[in-house]
Amino acid sequence: MEAASFTPGSVRPGGRTAKVRTAVLEATRAALVEAGFHGLNLDRVAAHAGVGKTTVYRRWGSAAGLVADLLRDMAEQSVPAADTGSLEGDLLANARLVRETLTDPRMGPVFQAVIAAAACDEECASALNGFYATRIREWAPCVERAAGRGEVPAGTDAAEVIRSVSAPLYYRFAVSREALAEADAVRAAAVAVSAARSGLFTRN
Amino acid sequence: MEAASFTPGSVRPGGRTAKVRTAVLEATRAALVEAGFHGLNLDRVAAHAGVGKTTVYRRWGSAAGLVADLLRDMAEQSVPAADTGSLEGDLLANARLVRETLTDPRMGPVFQAVIAAAACDEECASALNGFYATRIREWAPCVERAAGRGEVPAGTDAAEVIRSVSAPLYYRFAVSREALAEADAVRAAAVAVSAARSGLFTRN
Repeated sequence: MEAASFTPGSVRPGGRTAKVRTAVLEATRAALVEAGFHGLNLDRVAAHAGVGKTTVYRRWGSAAGLVADLLRDMAEQSVPAADTGSLEGDLLANARLVRETLTDPRMGPVFQAVIAAAACDEECASALNGFYATRIREWAPCVERAAGRGEVPAGTDAAEVIRSVSAPLYYRFAVSREALAEADAVRAAAVAVSAARSGLFTRN
Repeated sequence: MEAASFTPGSVRPGGRTAKVRTAVLEATRAALVEAGFHGLNLDRVAAHAGVGKTTVYRRWGSAAGLVADLLRDMAEQSVPAADTGSLEGDLLANARLVRETLTDPRMGPVFQAVIAAAACDEECASALNGFYATRIREWAPCVERAAGRGEVPAGTDAAEVIRSVSAPLYYRFAVSREALAEADAVRAAAVAVSAARSGLFTRN
């Protein structure tokens, strides 16, 4: 895309492409929630999106290609990391965000479906791994700032701290299939902060 | 089954039933790993198990019924909880067991498949929840003994401590799709012990 294409008021090349992508990913999300990865059919996604089949086949190629792009879009759209001034505040914001997302009536089923897709298909697994890698990169600076403030030891593995906030929430959501309460988010953040302060996440 | 049926050397009533169950669950496990929950077909399971279709339909009823019974069998067969004399030793044994199971070439794919099945089907979700409830009941006494020894505060939620050991390992395995190393098991146990000692798992 050329710089000139962003002149205000002009029709951006890419504007149509972006609209097609939005429609296709919305249809993908709906189909995944409705019928799961095995029910994800490119012809039906194209029809629901109001987009030509050829476009969908050419641009996304396969059901796994659709899921991978949906996850890329979810990573791009997701909420920026908090900066509350303390590790405790930041990780609590993170835990609450994870809990709100997973219990959201629209997003919860999407996460169920992409986790299931990742269990069935290696390309989806790799895309899901990429989604969480992006989220970890987004939130890692909270831990780095805390190390700078002396809240946690130097050499604390920021990624591991962020993972440890998510883990108990995802465990209940996707593995043991238990309810996910506000208290679980509060506990997840508290345990991560306490373990980080104690140096249990420092790199070996 | 009557007590007399267990006379050594006698043919146990139930012996045939137990053999049929073993064969059917083994075929279920293989089919799940091979083709996932959506590829689980009662006729093919019956054929692979060398058991009549009618038996499989009458006794298990559906693909979800097969998965639920497989999970019951996995819970029954699983390794008893450790009793090493310290919470640290017991939770480390637990973390290592979880890691070994999930990275086992035979069992890892079974866990992937049942987690995916649970994401697609409510009966499977309820069976998976039951599997982890059984495992938590099996391991909770480690925490209760630790409370008795004064290692952790009275009122510590034993189930929550056991969940917290599993959570980071399952998060990598089923959600973020990252490698699962021995160091992850060691860290999971250390974080759970530290948080339990600090009273972060006491009931409100």
